[in-house]
Amino acid sequence: VLKDGGRIAGRRFDLSSVEPTLTSFPSLVLIFSCCLAQKTPEPREVAPAPSFEGNPFAEEFADPVSRIVGRAILQNRAFERLDHLCTKIGGRLTGSENAEKAVDWCIATMKADGFDDARGEKVIVPVWVRGEEVVSMTAPQSMKLAACALGGSIGTLEGPIEAAVVEVEDIAGIRKLARDQVEGRIVYFNRRMQRDNPEFGYGVTVQNRSRGAIEAAMKGAVACAIRAVGTDEMNYPHTGMMGYDRVVPRIPAVAIGSEHADVLHSLLSQNVEVRLSVSLGAHTLPDAESANVVAEIKGREKPEEIVAIGGHLDSWDLGQGAIDDGAGCVIAWEAARLLLELDLRPRRTVRVVLFMNEESGLRGAAAYAETHAEELSRHVAAIESDGGADWPTGFSFGWNHTEGQAAGLVRVQQIGALLQGIGANRVRQGGSGGADLSPIHDVGVPCLGLNQDSSYYFDYHHSPEDTIDKVDPHRLSLNVAAMAAMTYVLAEMETALNSH
Amino acid sequence: VLKDGGRIAGRRFDLSSVEPTLTSFPSLVLIFSCCLAQKTPEPREVAPAPSFEGNPFAEEFADPVSRIVGRAILQNRAFERLDHLCTKIGGRLTGSENAEKAVDWCIATMKADGFDDARGEKVIVPVWVRGEEVVSMTAPQSMKLAACALGGSIGTLEGPIEAAVVEVEDIAGIRKLARDQVEGRIVYFNRRMQRDNPEFGYGVTVQNRSRGAIEAAMKGAVACAIRAVGTDEMNYPHTGMMGYDRVVPRIPAVAIGSEHADVLHSLLSQNVEVRLSVSLGAHTLPDAESANVVAEIKGREKPEEIVAIGGHLDSWDLGQGAIDDGAGCVIAWEAARLLLELDLRPRRTVRVVLFMNEESGLRGAAAYAETHAEELSRHVAAIESDGGADWPTGFSFGWNHTEGQAAGLVRVQQIGALLQGIGANRVRQGGSGGADLSPIHDVGVPCLGLNQDSSYYFDYHHSPEDTIDKVDPHRLSLNVAAMAAMTYVLAEMETALNSH
Repeated sequence: VLKDGGRIAGRRFDLSSVEPTLTSFPSLVLIFSCCLAQKTPEPREVAPAPSFEGNPFAEEFADPVSRIVGRAILQNRAFERLDHLCTKIGGRLTGSENAEKAVDWCIATMKADGFDDARGEKVIVPVWVRGEEVVSMTAPQSMKLAACALGGSIGTLEGPIEAAVVEVEDIAGIRKLARDQVEGRIVYFNRRMQRDNPEFGYGVTVQNRSRGAIEAAMKGAVACAIRAVGTDEMNYPHTGMMGYDRVVPRIPAVAIGSEHADVLHSLLSQNVEVRLSVSLGAHTLPDAESANVVAEIKGREKPEEIVAIGGHLDSWDLGQGAIDDGAGCVIAWEAARLLLELDLRPRRTVRVVLFMNEESGLRGAAAYAETHAEELSRHVAAIESDGGADWPTGFSFGWNHTEGQAAGLVRVQQIGALLQGIGANRVRQGGSGGADLSPIHDVGVPCLGLNQDSSYYFDYHHSPEDTIDKVDPHRLSLNVAAMAAMTYVLAEMETALNSH
Repeated sequence: VLKDGGRIAGRRFDLSSVEPTLTSFPSLVLIFSCCLAQKTPEPREVAPAPSFEGNPFAEEFADPVSRIVGRAILQNRAFERLDHLCTKIGGRLTGSENAEKAVDWCIATMKADGFDDARGEKVIVPVWVRGEEVVSMTAPQSMKLAACALGGSIGTLEGPIEAAVVEVEDIAGIRKLARDQVEGRIVYFNRRMQRDNPEFGYGVTVQNRSRGAIEAAMKGAVACAIRAVGTDEMNYPHTGMMGYDRVVPRIPAVAIGSEHADVLHSLLSQNVEVRLSVSLGAHTLPDAESANVVAEIKGREKPEEIVAIGGHLDSWDLGQGAIDDGAGCVIAWEAARLLLELDLRPRRTVRVVLFMNEESGLRGAAAYAETHAEELSRHVAAIESDGGADWPTGFSFGWNHTEGQAAGLVRVQQIGALLQGIGANRVRQGGSGGADLSPIHDVGVPCLGLNQDSSYYFDYHHSPEDTIDKVDPHRLSLNVAAMAAMTYVLAEMETALNSH
């Protein structure tokens, strides 16, 4: 499909030049930048207008897209599968028994669904174990806190750390303190994420999580605590990946729920001496073998050309991994299964990829790019859903290709416009489509992210409350509809999206 | 389609025995009983399960129903048409210029849609005119009230009525008072409709509106005021049909918004003397000619058999008639238009009927039954939507046929189950499907009502706030989907619903 495939393959699809970047790239920056690109709130707009009027894709696709959308909404298996992942299996921390159960169950169920191929593809993953954990305030009074270790944190295996607390708002705040204001203390980062203020959205607030322990340790702190990164007004701790630096001592890092964060802030802002005790069983085991789950519908005419769609199968351990990202997995899976059910085998191959280890290392993303290096020039598009299951709002589109991207954007917008009736028609340029697609985006695969209204996403994200009761089956089915329609058109339309 | 059509036509489809009932039946009781049957709150349930599994209708109908539902949601013309009715035309009080504009516009637009026939069918309607109106409290202080005349009320053409107020809760309350407690006064009925308490739902509360003026006048009252029948906590007056009795003097009747109703009740319950002034320009003009709007898709194989679907085109005058019942009109209209767009011309004729004068006399309903008397035995089903445009929840099913109704119910439930994925699968026995269907229900046509979640319906019903901003386009499109799917299956399935 590439008009000058040779040149392009040489310039953009050569993984040998990418791999070093992948391994040397600080993973926390990668995680963080992906989140930024993907998770800007997208409140739903009313979309009353007909979808097909004057749309260049309508003549060919109005009928199959109507069938797909109707079937997606009526024959909604996504929810029952998400229920299995969430309540029969549960949280799927990379390297855990649950994660492996999920891999096995998905492969077996996809085989029963009739996919042409359903398999695991090897990924070597890091194994972080949470263990028992207790975080308490010991002065001015004794109180157990709603708190959790951040992902990747070291534990306190030689016994609890008990120390006085010094509060800052953010990374700039800790940098302003003198070493003797910090040394021997626990640094508490108090910046609060704000639902309706992009200046204090996820991207800004998560910096305390990503770099807090590094910056605190540089000033001699013995532990790091952050106000949990989330928009809820409840008391959920929110975990998530934190980072260490090779040349800075590693200190334990925890997140504290919103109510207890307010307690700390109230006391500290009145100059009351606050002391915390941090006891974490967290530890890291040797790397282990896990897998990406891959299943296919072989293309009717051009099986060698691929539209890859997916989410990430791993999750954090505190909740069930329902919105992050069990939802994305079942959205992609059910989108493809519907094409089978409707006998809509498209011209090109549709490949479902459920990535392992998005949360704590992106090893599945790297493994996919490696395993399929030779095929990447024939990936006409990839789509990830990793923003929950609220109302679908549209797609992001990022194509690392100077000449092609403008025309590609127009075509994706035209396809997206077919979905105006369900409000999933807004197509915005930028991003890699999702963290798991970053490696293949970087080498030139046109990448889309299915976007959802994320107004409430960060209430539950990475917390014990990421459970299936937060998922509305109808909205989930609209996400399936949007994913299936976009996938079908990209896999069926005569001129491939990555032609230019 | 009737196995013993002769007997049945004789027993149940003979309008000559029905007409006297129609004309002698007190219209307020008819309106009132229909509302009762139709408007019980139906909160939405989550409906995660696949719709087609094990459904006897799935093999034949899974595909067309998927196409219908998908197209209904994507190519949503219902909202743009509702917008025209609401904002380009406005409230459509029977006999008003707006009502006639709506008739003309619907017929012209239906012709352009490609219906096989689109026409007006003559209805002679009552013409009630609201005129200018002012209701004030004059003691213990002066205050203009949020109030409106009830539909059909006489005016105060000889000058405002000013009198002391006596409060009762309901009809039982006025009956307990002695004549000298009431004579020369304005009776204020204070019963409040409750959103979450079926004991004080619409059916119970609306009795004050229907019979209040009669019961008050029987005790010598000079006017009647009621707490507006609605569930809002704002100050909207809610109008709606009231009744007079031939042998009881007619007195003016008004409804008072919730906030001001509280003011009256607070003062009156503390035995403060409250006086009201009622000035109403309301009057009734001679009957005039109007029309039901009728449009058809002629049946592919059995054009003489009919599935009639509709809503009522008239509305009250205070608002735009969006939820009552512009929504029902565009739901039925668009449901049929979609079948045209999808080239799904069913075996039997689908007839859209937009009834005139549901609110203030049901003359359109009577006219339809008269005009089509000979065809009624070939009406295999009729469906009305008259409960707004919130989430569809399913259908009511009423068939005045002792032998057939149980089997009919099962079949409607099976068809309804195809819509489980959108939550529109609950089918309940009872009712006439809608006030406009009462006459044809009585003579044996199987009648369905499309039901909606009505949790918020009575916040706006009959008030100035019945405007299009209360209608969510997506939920409206789901109603279109449910109506279109049910209509298509009833018009296409081999054995007609009214066979037995």
